[in-house]
Amino acid sequence: MSEDERPLVIFDPFPRSRELIFRDDTWEKLAARTRIVSHEGERMPEALVDKHIGEAALVIGQSALPAERLARAGKLRGVINVEGNFLPNIDYAGCFARGIKVLAIAPAFARPVAEMGLGFAIDLARGITRADNDFRKGKEGYGLSGNQGAFLLSGADMGFVGFGNLGQALLPLLQPFRPTIRVFDPWLPEGYLTDFGLVPASLDEVLSRSRVTFVLAGVTEENRGMIGAREFSLVPDDAAFVLLSRADIVDWDAFLEATRGGRFRAATDVFPVEPVPAGDPVRGHPHLLLSSHRAGGVREVFLRIGEMVLDDALLILAGLPPVRLQAARAETVTRLRSKPGRSYARGEV
Amino acid sequence: MSEDERPLVIFDPFPRSRELIFRDDTWEKLAARTRIVSHEGERMPEALVDKHIGEAALVIGQSALPAERLARAGKLRGVINVEGNFLPNIDYAGCFARGIKVLAIAPAFARPVAEMGLGFAIDLARGITRADNDFRKGKEGYGLSGNQGAFLLSGADMGFVGFGNLGQALLPLLQPFRPTIRVFDPWLPEGYLTDFGLVPASLDEVLSRSRVTFVLAGVTEENRGMIGAREFSLVPDDAAFVLLSRADIVDWDAFLEATRGGRFRAATDVFPVEPVPAGDPVRGHPHLLLSSHRAGGVREVFLRIGEMVLDDALLILAGLPPVRLQAARAETVTRLRSKPGRSYARGEV
Amino acid sequence: MSEDERPLVIFDPFPRSRELIFRDDTWEKLAARTRIVSHEGERMPEALVDKHIGEAALVIGQSALPAERLARAGKLRGVINVEGNFLPNIDYAGCFARGIKVLAIAPAFARPVAEMGLGFAIDLARGITRADNDFRKGKEGYGLSGNQGAFLLSGADMGFVGFGNLGQALLPLLQPFRPTIRVFDPWLPEGYLTDFGLVPASLDEVLSRSRVTFVLAGVTEENRGMIGAREFSLVPDDAAFVLLSRADIVDWDAFLEATRGGRFRAATDVFPVEPVPAGDPVRGHPHLLLSSHRAGGVREVFLRIGEMVLDDALLILAGLPPVRLQAARAETVTRLRSKPGRSYARGEV
Amino acid sequence: MSEDERPLVIFDPFPRSRELIFRDDTWEKLAARTRIVSHEGERMPEALVDKHIGEAALVIGQSALPAERLARAGKLRGVINVEGNFLPNIDYAGCFARGIKVLAIAPAFARPVAEMGLGFAIDLARGITRADNDFRKGKEGYGLSGNQGAFLLSGADMGFVGFGNLGQALLPLLQPFRPTIRVFDPWLPEGYLTDFGLVPASLDEVLSRSRVTFVLAGVTEENRGMIGAREFSLVPDDAAFVLLSRADIVDWDAFLEATRGGRFRAATDVFPVEPVPAGDPVRGHPHLLLSSHRAGGVREVFLRIGEMVLDDALLILAGLPPVRLQAARAETVTRLRSKPGRSYARGEV
Repeated sequence: MSEDERPLVIFDPFPRSRELIFRDDTWEKLAARTRIVSHEGERMPEALVDKHIGEAALVIGQSALPAERLARAGKLRGVINVEGNFLPNIDYAGCFARGIKVLAIAPAFARPVAEMGLGFAIDLARGITRADNDFRKGKEGYGLSGNQGAFLLSGADMGFVGFGNLGQALLPLLQPFRPTIRVFDPWLPEGYLTDFGLVPASLDEVLSRSRVTFVLAGVTEENRGMIGAREFSLVPDDAAFVLLSRADIVDWDAFLEATRGGRFRAATDVFPVEPVPAGDPVRGHPHLLLSSHRAGGVREVFLRIGEMVLDDALLILAGLPPVRLQAARAETVTRLRSKPGRSYARGEV
Repeated sequence: MSEDERPLVIFDPFPRSRELIFRDDTWEKLAARTRIVSHEGERMPEALVDKHIGEAALVIGQSALPAERLARAGKLRGVINVEGNFLPNIDYAGCFARGIKVLAIAPAFARPVAEMGLGFAIDLARGITRADNDFRKGKEGYGLSGNQGAFLLSGADMGFVGFGNLGQALLPLLQPFRPTIRVFDPWLPEGYLTDFGLVPASLDEVLSRSRVTFVLAGVTEENRGMIGAREFSLVPDDAAFVLLSRADIVDWDAFLEATRGGRFRAATDVFPVEPVPAGDPVRGHPHLLLSSHRAGGVREVFLRIGEMVLDDALLILAGLPPVRLQAARAETVTRLRSKPGRSYARGEV
Repeated sequence: MSEDERPLVIFDPFPRSRELIFRDDTWEKLAARTRIVSHEGERMPEALVDKHIGEAALVIGQSALPAERLARAGKLRGVINVEGNFLPNIDYAGCFARGIKVLAIAPAFARPVAEMGLGFAIDLARGITRADNDFRKGKEGYGLSGNQGAFLLSGADMGFVGFGNLGQALLPLLQPFRPTIRVFDPWLPEGYLTDFGLVPASLDEVLSRSRVTFVLAGVTEENRGMIGAREFSLVPDDAAFVLLSRADIVDWDAFLEATRGGRFRAATDVFPVEPVPAGDPVRGHPHLLLSSHRAGGVREVFLRIGEMVLDDALLILAGLPPVRLQAARAETVTRLRSKPGRSYARGEV
Repeated sequence: MSEDERPLVIFDPFPRSRELIFRDDTWEKLAARTRIVSHEGERMPEALVDKHIGEAALVIGQSALPAERLARAGKLRGVINVEGNFLPNIDYAGCFARGIKVLAIAPAFARPVAEMGLGFAIDLARGITRADNDFRKGKEGYGLSGNQGAFLLSGADMGFVGFGNLGQALLPLLQPFRPTIRVFDPWLPEGYLTDFGLVPASLDEVLSRSRVTFVLAGVTEENRGMIGAREFSLVPDDAAFVLLSRADIVDWDAFLEATRGGRFRAATDVFPVEPVPAGDPVRGHPHLLLSSHRAGGVREVFLRIGEMVLDDALLILAGLPPVRLQAARAETVTRLRSKPGRSYARGEV
């Protein structure tokens, strides 16, 4: 055989890099089974994409795939976004009609975000960060006197706003505490939730009856700003409110206002604008636990992405269903609103 | 019947108080079934104890019970310490010979301490408190750049120093992370540990192979200062070390020294002297997460103590074995070294 | 509005019936939201299907949908098979190209089959059925003398052949026994399995190292008769072999031969021909636990099917992704070989 | 040192034998640390016990220890019964006053009995044994037609009569089914049970509201025959009743009568007289699943006993609390009624 018949892969990972998501041995497994056209440090030039798209079996990365380019991608079987969100630069309907898989890496981030969410919840329930600060100022209280408003997770009522990847990763971490967990998710029927042992509920019920509420939903046109002043007023005193998925779910000003007096505690990993501007008053907010979009992006997590991409790439090339990444769904891919180019975005949907 | 034949209870809870540990309804249940001689605000005067000890069926509190007093306590069936530690003011051998139950409330604190321990572990693994501080200083890093040295608990190797009440409460909280957990506990045979799915190990193995080590042992003459400079040198880089049970288990100076440079992270809820003196340099230690003996003493936990005391008191009076509190064991009660009068002591053994 | 604008549903459930799978209240919810054209007791006449297919938004049942009919089904959004298997009477490629969901009810059967599988495993490990028979014959042995070859599930090595719906339902039931579980599934990458705490393995490893092996795979052209005389020779003495998914996975004659002498024990819920002919020698087999395709078809399970169908029907009609039933996947739907018309087939894939 | 200063052990295991409970390597570990005076095949002759009791540090077995012998046992530190029940041939009060540990092996049997109990429950719920018999007679029903009265454990209400060793071993095996479990145990306070996630209940509530009831209590004077005709009338139709601990808990005639018509199903591992007489009508009972006291006595379980005895023997000799076996409790040891000399007795209390 004089010619290389391995399938062609377009690798266009920017703003990610190969080094970030692939261990050497993982990359070599991909390279052994495919021919790779790679471009890093910026989006692959259009001309280069165009040159290879006709031969490409897979696109790994964020190359634009409008209808006209897709029409020339006769061998294309899969598109694997490694940035995190489904971007609007793809003709999704065209992909679906052709049976081209469109995948994203959100599942890789579910576990680290879930662990962080549990950490935030315990921190708020028990005042870990606050007490460390008090101690350094010589103002610590010992035993009960240092535990004003503290509560145990064991047996506490909890609530989820949204039950997708993140919720499914968080749920097993919470089960040893034997909580009642109410869930608001308008995309899921009640029987689906009760099969997980969860209690279907309205948003108001979740907010008003949970000692710990986790916001885990992706942003859509419908839920933008869904939790505003009225909703925050429902949160019980001394409760914990953990914002993990997208800042746009809450009315940000109402969020800052509701937490300002310390009536309940809150943690957030996401902000309306990231990086947060230098002088943003949130930096001095006395009752927020602040985390700079750090819940998902741990080194070992990025390296797992490469393994997941490799696994699903090989399954697609073998004519088998991918199982590790998240497939875009026709019904929701265009509803989810993420901001392309925001490099800190995590991509849970 | 002209006389009150309800059994007599001596209630001498100082430094606790009735209000701290009994809800009104719990107290009323006890009061309905017994006659209570109570003294609060200080240790019950000796004369008052002496006056009633001959009639007492139960002592709830920390009254001294030396051999000569015990000899006059002909109706005594149980002693329930509500302060937390087995104090040296009791003739334990005399109680055991008479079949008098001696109980302490340590089990009540196991769950809150376990939850706090998990919170510390996630905080150290993910840098929650540190990142909040960085954010407030405008030095936060987003995504991966804010996650230097961060790691997931999922799949991490963990270690326990000691596997008693605290370990048994912590274990189920860790199981969703599916860790390998090595345990050093010289009082427990290997088969006991493997039945829990744990890996018996030496102290050196626990320290050197664990990404997260939890110190959960009570202090005895044998283990005081057991973890010193040599032992700390075994802890891997970027590991997390969580000190929950007693400061005296570690060589404190070696502990401060080992963590000073940030080679690994540590959290502690306990200190050699509490309250920590105002000028103590630990307050400025850059790589310790500090908690002022707050892990156990949550309001709802104290109120559970009253329920547990009531339950075991009624069992003892009914001639049944107590099941909720911890019974002193002849073999260990005099080995465990706690500091009587240290009001923040938590009492895990 | 003079016309009924509710979406049209073709309900063609034969060999199921409405009464079998729908509680009245579930059915009424469907009827309130849709117009239903229903035919029971036999497959809906072709003319009736043809009459309504142009208006139908959903087909619930097994109506044939060849390409030419599909071409006229301009409003069709989903096909929900309620019989159990993906039949070859549908133009799947045509459905996928149009974004028409094709769903089947296999997930409903996963839990009952998993429970039965656990019951079979304990029965084989402990000789429950055998001992009941011995007792009735006056040949029972007490204590150890009645427990020849018996073993505990706790800590036993186990194996799965296939890890789909059934495996995912069985896994949590086995976890309290803390087994090592080896899995052979050529459609799944190793990392997918290790994320569940499973050990990827070859078929030979699964068979030779498992004290209990569960066969849970659907039948494809590749795996028909995959477990034959050589493979059965690998099974350890006194092991338990549980056949749950499809008889065609094993070489049936080899299966009967391998188990005839009682070297290891086996249970089966499936047979090459069902109903099993009256004189079939399997009825007298001394070392097989026999179950007549009963693992899935429990009354309460059928009634859950209606709930799941309703939920996914409403999601599809609302433009949301179905979440309760199993979606046909282009890669595998034509590989899975089931026997249309076999009314006892369970439909796990 | 001219003399052997290893502590002396009296080993008097009849009706057990060394070979039954000790692997060679386990025995050798004991033999290396102690001097053993052993007698097998019958109870050790009184003269031999008397000869050595003054030197003995441990008795492993069932030697009689009346007060007068105990008075001469000046070095005795522990008594380890390996037969299963606390026999009335010991001066327990004398042992307790001296701090001599009295241990029994009941915990070894908890896990195998729990596994068998789960197997019985699934068998009754799904008709495993009945269906195998039907199949052999050519009367099997396929799918739903073979599943009259069948039900899933998932989500079923369950009940425990007694919550000791057996209940604690059974509980984790049931948790994946997410049942509500009601418990009747008059020796345990409500808070103890709710901490396990259980629902405290009266006996009538347990029987009337449970789809599966497990009888797990030891026999005392108070509960002998506690479940009689009235109580059996409370059991719901098609429920499953699993008798695991002691036949004497039920009124046996009422039990046979209540189950005769098949209104509900039952399994039993225990009988009023064992071995059951040849002509006992229970052998022909159509609706009982019969097991000849086989739930505990599995070969591997007996061999674990030796390990547990070794571990606790060494702990006692080292002055540490034993942790693996069950310590006799002054309050209950004389209440529990077992039949000495019944060699199939299992010894759960």
